[in-house]
Amino acid sequence: MSLQMALEVERSSDDSLTSQIQQFIKNEIAAGVLHPGTRLPSSRRLASDLDVSRSVVVEAYGQLVAEGYLEAAQGSGTRVVDHLPASGAVVPALLDEGWVPAVRWDLRPGAGNTPAFPRREWLGCYQRALQGAGPESHAYPPLAGMAELRIELARYLGRARGVRTTPGEVLVVSGFAQALGLLCGVLPQFGITELGMEDPGHPGQRQFVRESGLRPVPVPVDEDGIDVDALARTGVRAVVVTPAHQFPTGVGLTPARRAALAAWAREVDGWVIEDDYDGGLWYERGGRPLALQRLDPERVVYAGTASKTLAPGLRLGWVAAPPQLLGPLLRHRARHDLGTESLTQLAFAELLRSGLFDRHLRRITTLCRSRREALVEAVRKHLPGTTVLGARAGLHAYLRLPPGTDEAALVAGALRRSVLVRGAAGFHVRRPWDAPALVVGHAHLPRSALTEAVRHLGSVGHWFEPSASPRPGSSAASAGRRWS
Amino acid sequence: MSLQMALEVERSSDDSLTSQIQQFIKNEIAAGVLHPGTRLPSSRRLASDLDVSRSVVVEAYGQLVAEGYLEAAQGSGTRVVDHLPASGAVVPALLDEGWVPAVRWDLRPGAGNTPAFPRREWLGCYQRALQGAGPESHAYPPLAGMAELRIELARYLGRARGVRTTPGEVLVVSGFAQALGLLCGVLPQFGITELGMEDPGHPGQRQFVRESGLRPVPVPVDEDGIDVDALARTGVRAVVVTPAHQFPTGVGLTPARRAALAAWAREVDGWVIEDDYDGGLWYERGGRPLALQRLDPERVVYAGTASKTLAPGLRLGWVAAPPQLLGPLLRHRARHDLGTESLTQLAFAELLRSGLFDRHLRRITTLCRSRREALVEAVRKHLPGTTVLGARAGLHAYLRLPPGTDEAALVAGALRRSVLVRGAAGFHVRRPWDAPALVVGHAHLPRSALTEAVRHLGSVGHWFEPSASPRPGSSAASAGRRWS
Repeated sequence: MSLQMALEVERSSDDSLTSQIQQFIKNEIAAGVLHPGTRLPSSRRLASDLDVSRSVVVEAYGQLVAEGYLEAAQGSGTRVVDHLPASGAVVPALLDEGWVPAVRWDLRPGAGNTPAFPRREWLGCYQRALQGAGPESHAYPPLAGMAELRIELARYLGRARGVRTTPGEVLVVSGFAQALGLLCGVLPQFGITELGMEDPGHPGQRQFVRESGLRPVPVPVDEDGIDVDALARTGVRAVVVTPAHQFPTGVGLTPARRAALAAWAREVDGWVIEDDYDGGLWYERGGRPLALQRLDPERVVYAGTASKTLAPGLRLGWVAAPPQLLGPLLRHRARHDLGTESLTQLAFAELLRSGLFDRHLRRITTLCRSRREALVEAVRKHLPGTTVLGARAGLHAYLRLPPGTDEAALVAGALRRSVLVRGAAGFHVRRPWDAPALVVGHAHLPRSALTEAVRHLGSVGHWFEPSASPRPGSSAASAGRRWS
Repeated sequence: MSLQMALEVERSSDDSLTSQIQQFIKNEIAAGVLHPGTRLPSSRRLASDLDVSRSVVVEAYGQLVAEGYLEAAQGSGTRVVDHLPASGAVVPALLDEGWVPAVRWDLRPGAGNTPAFPRREWLGCYQRALQGAGPESHAYPPLAGMAELRIELARYLGRARGVRTTPGEVLVVSGFAQALGLLCGVLPQFGITELGMEDPGHPGQRQFVRESGLRPVPVPVDEDGIDVDALARTGVRAVVVTPAHQFPTGVGLTPARRAALAAWAREVDGWVIEDDYDGGLWYERGGRPLALQRLDPERVVYAGTASKTLAPGLRLGWVAAPPQLLGPLLRHRARHDLGTESLTQLAFAELLRSGLFDRHLRRITTLCRSRREALVEAVRKHLPGTTVLGARAGLHAYLRLPPGTDEAALVAGALRRSVLVRGAAGFHVRRPWDAPALVVGHAHLPRSALTEAVRHLGSVGHWFEPSASPRPGSSAASAGRRWS
């Protein structure tokens, strides 16, 4: 091995070279510069780098091993020992992030809630991409994305989602979050400082928009999707929607509402941001909605992501942008980073080009459909009076509980039974018309685990109030079955 | 193959199923939804998806092939033909980005100016990372970076650059640009709205800072690096510096200036941002400077990047941040994206852990040293009176031309000889004390090409004025040799 170490010796010093090396390493360990477990250069290598005799380094290393600073591991050279008291706090501090209770069944939607990553196919595509990569593929990527991927995305989005776009209008981004952040940065240039957001919706997304400097304005969702009349009354000129499979209720935006939404955007000289977050995963033959964007590519920003169909860790998303927004989005991005990692882009282009992405989608659709069926069956059996909404698509389901159920008590009781599940309350800004309910991520769990988890949910004491009647004024309470 | 296509048929329609499919595909092509070259599902697959007889699809496809919309390619199924007049403008539009004249020798520093990417080693590390990746590696990455990489970076930076940090203080970012963007976003929280920047320096970086909302304030650089007295007089409280190998002049910040800079930061309650952009590539035995950051980890933000040592396309950088800035940087990042791609992080962690990164650095150091020697030799031979500055390190060199040389005429003449080179003028904000000069990226070119390119530079007419005397008032004019 040819490890480097930042270390100089002073030939004219009174100190011997061995002692200088020894003292330097001790000091660097004490100062926390050299960390526990750090491998050091071989004595041969360090001696050559310092232009000293090898025995000088051998002696210094030997002394430090004897003193307990270094250890000589068979076959892997010399390293700083692992158990230095000075740095014990390091790893626990790292683990602080994103702590959640250790539970047996994690039914939360979102992070981690994706089926298996297609490891073999991805690696093959990455390898082909790397083999075909010339120097230009390793240079700074174009801010809008690699041409190879923009071309494949335009083809794929047209073919599979009915998006009307061209490679020149496709932007590759580091996940939907970046797309939304860029849009929040650009909309004020058009006099837009408020952003309509579905209610219920994604609480993290509301928070993200607020921190990006725009004011999120909740717009109610009913069984036909977002209420476009209510949207018009808010006076906002831009809105984020999830038309294919509303998050979290799972309702689909009806054709009439779609037309009304596109007309609204033209009327207010504004934009609809279509968050096609679950990539059109669809479990039934027929009825799969096309992108809303095709109704008006000048007024609808289509945004997709690899987070649900491949993995959030890829941080890969894309936007089919109206021409008017294209330049502003790129100029805004140039203030924040210099593009998305290029080899990941090329690997994904290859996955699309080769048809392996479609094959993967088929496979996870089959898998998730089967898991969804297990969930629906378990709910029927163990949670009487509960309706599963949005069951035709996506990686999560919305379980509408019988009226009168104490949602919070159910969630707390579930946790005591080692089931981590989210109640609908956290997704609502205003009156929870469609609550009590649970939002259940199911795509990552095998059928047996889903059945078990739901059985435990059903065993949580007196959460079910069969005698409660629908709340007055809540039209959805009785309409549930229409859009389940 | 199992390609998907967004297409529905209406069984109750007057139109035959074949005609519906045919018409749909024609319309989608005309609308630009289905792009030239798009592969379509096999007739068997589409028939199965639509639940129609295969002959229905075969007939529709056949008709469209006959009409010139589709083509049946041997072995790769059916695709939309490539030459549809409607979309001819697509690819040229993509190529508009980053246009440069086609030249034989591109001596620009920066983008693309990196030696060969270690393809085999990287792929091996990526593969091992992917094989060892559990579900958590595919989930949303921690905003600060994957723990595996933060641990390896803390070890590496301590060992190889003398940085004093811990894994908990290391942030993984999508390139130095993102690090700088985040810092520009955070400094105003501490009342800092102006940022000192080296003059001469990187023009793109100045522009980036300006667009990020801070005012860049030029601070002169002399033969000892940035002028700390001049910095203090500006009244700014934060500054970006390149202490190891100043960009573009190549001078090193002297020990006295380093100490003064750290003291200045404490005094003004501000920060020094250390841009260690060329990763400590060093061509001589001894004298390699350690990170400035070690003088005061509370006041110096250390930032590094894989752009020069591996590839800009990886969009991978890191920051060792003072504890006071850590939280604000993470909170600010949470408004822009949700972290850096995880598999690339894990692959780089593996490259560091295995020692392959050090081996790669040794290899490119040897290579770049040899190229640097060729450059120095060619300059001696073909550009008499020119001094090569900063020759001990880095991927570019600063060629100080004889006083009186018409820099702009030389650059223009070079371009006529198919040599693209940057004059120093573009890097200066104020009086170019160290001009006329050329900034030459050499690391990507073989020795023979460098020799040839410099020979052509030398052949550019009357650019050399041997009789010109040093400009009065320019101390550097005569001091050049001291720091070359």
